[in-house]
Amino acid sequence: MTAAPRAYEFLKGHGTENDFVLLPDHDGAVHGELSAERVRALCDRRAGIGGDGVLRVVRSAAYDLAATFDPDADAEWFMDYRNADGSVSEMCGNGVRVFARHLIEEGLADPARPIPVGTRDGVKTVTVEGDLLTVDMGSPRVLGASAVSVDGTTWPVRHIDMGNPHAVAMVDSLDVAGPVGTLDVEPAYDHAVYPHGVNVEFVLPRGERHVAMRVHERGSGETRSCGTGACAVMVAAALADGLVEEVPADDVAYRVDVLGGSLRITWTHEDRVLLTGPAVIVARGRTAL
Amino acid sequence: MTAAPRAYEFLKGHGTENDFVLLPDHDGAVHGELSAERVRALCDRRAGIGGDGVLRVVRSAAYDLAATFDPDADAEWFMDYRNADGSVSEMCGNGVRVFARHLIEEGLADPARPIPVGTRDGVKTVTVEGDLLTVDMGSPRVLGASAVSVDGTTWPVRHIDMGNPHAVAMVDSLDVAGPVGTLDVEPAYDHAVYPHGVNVEFVLPRGERHVAMRVHERGSGETRSCGTGACAVMVAAALADGLVEEVPADDVAYRVDVLGGSLRITWTHEDRVLLTGPAVIVARGRTAL
Repeated sequence: MTAAPRAYEFLKGHGTENDFVLLPDHDGAVHGELSAERVRALCDRRAGIGGDGVLRVVRSAAYDLAATFDPDADAEWFMDYRNADGSVSEMCGNGVRVFARHLIEEGLADPARPIPVGTRDGVKTVTVEGDLLTVDMGSPRVLGASAVSVDGTTWPVRHIDMGNPHAVAMVDSLDVAGPVGTLDVEPAYDHAVYPHGVNVEFVLPRGERHVAMRVHERGSGETRSCGTGACAVMVAAALADGLVEEVPADDVAYRVDVLGGSLRITWTHEDRVLLTGPAVIVARGRTAL
Repeated sequence: MTAAPRAYEFLKGHGTENDFVLLPDHDGAVHGELSAERVRALCDRRAGIGGDGVLRVVRSAAYDLAATFDPDADAEWFMDYRNADGSVSEMCGNGVRVFARHLIEEGLADPARPIPVGTRDGVKTVTVEGDLLTVDMGSPRVLGASAVSVDGTTWPVRHIDMGNPHAVAMVDSLDVAGPVGTLDVEPAYDHAVYPHGVNVEFVLPRGERHVAMRVHERGSGETRSCGTGACAVMVAAALADGLVEEVPADDVAYRVDVLGGSLRITWTHEDRVLLTGPAVIVARGRTAL
């Protein structure tokens, strides 16, 4: 472990208002084993910089946790992702776009070619088209039906797994004055179906292949955007709309509006879900947190 | 009005977790008339830097709103304070400590001597002792009694004016599971007594001249700290404890614990209320927001 210097570099960026503190640490010499305590201090929205998580930017060759990542994989850069509470996490669909945007802005990756990014969930490939970045989020698993409740109202849900569990409910209104409400308490769900908790999405149709959603994230409460949640919502909507039975015959794309912006989700004929959206870096500086 | 350059300098700091984005603009040439839109973008906690407000750091001689501030007053620096919503505000007791801390760290003020800071509420003088900064918040006005209610529970309150209106209730518990609750809705109050709204403080005795408080700030909801609120709480507590009848015979000091830390409030025999607490700068950098 290397002690962090008194002051070190950081950046702040977001994808549809899912926001992150980035820590350049190319050779692993600045932060070494980044402590949970430092992650919490950086993500603190009042006493720190503020963010939903930290993205440590390290060369795969310098990343020494070989048990969770193959450094021989074809990804020069590794996204060491941490949740705001300091815990280690595998992947984040909004985070990996912000990570790739940073590599491009620093001249560390070529936006004209696919950008492989190492994560604890394997190598993710990001492609760029103007302001939008696309990441392959893998194949969905469409599971059974269940139900969720908020304040006495119950909705049937589809159980979709995107590497993490989702309960997707179709609703008539996303208004905080409506039955979905303020989402300041976790919706009730069936613990037998979701033994490790669940991300709950509420979906309102807005037009052809266009929906809006709100999400209550497991352990975080309502958030402005959830990458895997938007993917699960798109899969559930395409099934509900009868556009897909099991795997799309041709690629199907939906616009999914989240509170923090708009995402485009494509379910391909190869059964992959592609997440497309903006990612921006808004500030850079130094801190000694 | 001068257009802001593509990227400009910022700092982030806080006093008991009341946090601010600082904008160095010594000669008023960087930001000119800082727009409400830019203030909102900077204070946005997801898409921006994040803060309860912006402190523009400008020389009094370069501050051209003579109608609201006398540039001949003996204060080299002016704190151009804006709320997170972009509106102009007179003063902020936590903000002026962070402002003075910044001047000291930049070598723009001498911590060994009182530091005058120009504000729209006149010149405030900050004194420094180690990590703690003290600002004179002026004289309290102790007004009549009233009452506030949360979710069916009603408490009597003292009406204290610290330049802004406060309703101070003594309670048996500050627990979110108790009657004060989560404070996610504004407490009910008498609009005839408080026609422009009110900041509501709940106060729990913790020991001799030591209280804890939670606050629902007018227009902001519950916050981690409120400088004028802590002053109003101390005045109400000193009166309730029988230590002061109208004006203290000798200086009286209380420790007031807020969610974001601890403040020391002194009510002097000259009927001034002094707010003492920490103030730190946690990051500096550049942004183009």
